[in-house]
Amino acid sequence: MDRDRILLTPGPLTTTLRTKLAMLRDWGSWDADFNALTARVRHSLLSVVQGHDSHVVVPLQGSGTFSVEAAVATVVPRDGHVLVLDNGAYCKRAARIATLMGRRCTVLPFDEAQPVDPQALAQSLSADPSISHVVLIHCETGAGVLNPLQAVADVCQQQGRGLIVDAMSSFGALEIDARRTRFDALVAASGKCLEGVPGMGFVFIRKAVLDGCAGNSASLAMDLHDQYVYMEKTGQWRFTPPTHVVAALHEAIVQFEAEGGQPARLARYTANFRALSEGMAALGLRPFLEPAIQAPIIVTYHAPAHPAYDFKRFYAAARQYGFLLYPGKLTQLETFRVGCIGAIGPNDMRQAVDAVARALTDLGIPPGRPDA
Amino acid sequence: MDRDRILLTPGPLTTTLRTKLAMLRDWGSWDADFNALTARVRHSLLSVVQGHDSHVVVPLQGSGTFSVEAAVATVVPRDGHVLVLDNGAYCKRAARIATLMGRRCTVLPFDEAQPVDPQALAQSLSADPSISHVVLIHCETGAGVLNPLQAVADVCQQQGRGLIVDAMSSFGALEIDARRTRFDALVAASGKCLEGVPGMGFVFIRKAVLDGCAGNSASLAMDLHDQYVYMEKTGQWRFTPPTHVVAALHEAIVQFEAEGGQPARLARYTANFRALSEGMAALGLRPFLEPAIQAPIIVTYHAPAHPAYDFKRFYAAARQYGFLLYPGKLTQLETFRVGCIGAIGPNDMRQAVDAVARALTDLGIPPGRPDA
Repeated sequence: MDRDRILLTPGPLTTTLRTKLAMLRDWGSWDADFNALTARVRHSLLSVVQGHDSHVVVPLQGSGTFSVEAAVATVVPRDGHVLVLDNGAYCKRAARIATLMGRRCTVLPFDEAQPVDPQALAQSLSADPSISHVVLIHCETGAGVLNPLQAVADVCQQQGRGLIVDAMSSFGALEIDARRTRFDALVAASGKCLEGVPGMGFVFIRKAVLDGCAGNSASLAMDLHDQYVYMEKTGQWRFTPPTHVVAALHEAIVQFEAEGGQPARLARYTANFRALSEGMAALGLRPFLEPAIQAPIIVTYHAPAHPAYDFKRFYAAARQYGFLLYPGKLTQLETFRVGCIGAIGPNDMRQAVDAVARALTDLGIPPGRPDA
Repeated sequence: MDRDRILLTPGPLTTTLRTKLAMLRDWGSWDADFNALTARVRHSLLSVVQGHDSHVVVPLQGSGTFSVEAAVATVVPRDGHVLVLDNGAYCKRAARIATLMGRRCTVLPFDEAQPVDPQALAQSLSADPSISHVVLIHCETGAGVLNPLQAVADVCQQQGRGLIVDAMSSFGALEIDARRTRFDALVAASGKCLEGVPGMGFVFIRKAVLDGCAGNSASLAMDLHDQYVYMEKTGQWRFTPPTHVVAALHEAIVQFEAEGGQPARLARYTANFRALSEGMAALGLRPFLEPAIQAPIIVTYHAPAHPAYDFKRFYAAARQYGFLLYPGKLTQLETFRVGCIGAIGPNDMRQAVDAVARALTDLGIPPGRPDA
């Protein structure tokens, strides 16, 4: 009988028992108590990005991808033109979403080992005035690259285009300040760096563009403008909310604030990242990205070149020692990923490295010389 | 310090502690343990409708409405024509969903105090061969009417049209047998009569129409065909699943099966309904529907005609005594609703009636003569 396994994944992730205990109550979705819970969550979320003056926040049922789709459907007019800055799998998904819903969509490709380039964006926008909105993934979880949000936002502002940011895996850990960084929409979810459980997303929408969003969405469920208007009027969600998930997020945010908010969370995740990096380096495992563009959220490692390596067996072995790793998502290279996020600390990361070492040994791969 | 209040609402509803305790664990969405959980839930759901031979079941993140929208988007071709049998608020919502997504949509209106009429449906279908799909709400929660699923399905089959059933508030409590009743899609959700927590829906799709569904949906998140194909291939959800909600549903289904499945659940809800009906009648409160068309799921009552009646005050008073009632949803009449579903029994319903009596007294309305 061991402890629950620790999730070293980009979400769902390991949450505190206190957060999970908040789900031991049933809430009436029409009740004032639950409305107050929703209101407190929304207020706290706006505080995280200093967005009370400039933005509203609209929660939405479903996974984070539902909120990304809803943001594009709600913010981009039907005759709009979306430019997706593409340096990874989640960028490609955003482009597929925009194309499927019938929005004109152009992809600006970049190397998945590099951040997107604001200069190239500026040139694309100058060359094509029909582009109405730019989509940026803040931290591309595919490889773990940190993209230059501020510089991209500045280019969009200078050229008068809207910006939609997928901040799924950065929100709460990396600084985002709506007073300094202009975005029309920014998307995140409950089960990531706020350390809630999965089941809902939320989208910040700039007040200045909000009224113009009415009628854009061809989906009722994903119409964030409709969700917003109803919620402002009634305090309630339009359709049945995931009440237990909302309660867990509320409790997670209380702990987030008590820990010291985003700076404290970034400090802990950075400590996790360092403990992981040092330990994995000692095992001879090489990260895919240059340190300067690596967010302390999720780290992609080259798979050992040893002939005995097989991800499924490696995963199963590390799992046996109490840790869940994550498969790689690069198209050309054999990699695996390790998350640094969740209700865990540097000690857990050191134990994770130890589990990886044992797993390699079990596979017959000598830790320290995994490519031999 | 009192017990948690009991939810007499159409969902979210009161769940067992055992169901909620299943949420005290974090699951990796990529892990074999979680895949097995998903597979067991899907298998059990198919067993509820005896659908293993004829249907597949596809779970979807979000509220039940998301699954209704996904069912229409996935099953109805882009040039299809939807006929909505309308006897209430949820029918109107389905029509709005179909229209918004660009499907041609016709509404066949009925009295909200009556079931829809299969004869009228047959005439409409004969008169308009362009109608490709019919949408039926099995139990219209707006008033609580039980609609004639079998007769509607027979008409659709005879005339060769597809049928999409919203069985949100009936699934698990009322008998649905896919061997006898032909439907192309049938939709329900976790937080209703299976007594799970809210946060996911699921759609049964007839195997014979499944392949033809590819490419119908203009939404990536709601494409049930895509979700199905990916889940069959990998055992995983396409996008982050609401892991804790899935775990709670699994635990709820284990209890559902142990209780004796759908017949036992119907028997308990019927006992709840009888206890409620007898008690409310003694208080002089009159149900809106004739008994023959009243499903034992949710009951609409005429509001007391007494001048001191006000729903918000009535709600607050009943709440103080431990029970959450539900507002009415009829357009012309002042009503309120009381749910009979959830992890509660006839004793709870008798206590609920007692709370209603006390609430009326608090408002200065004499129980027994509420219209005086």
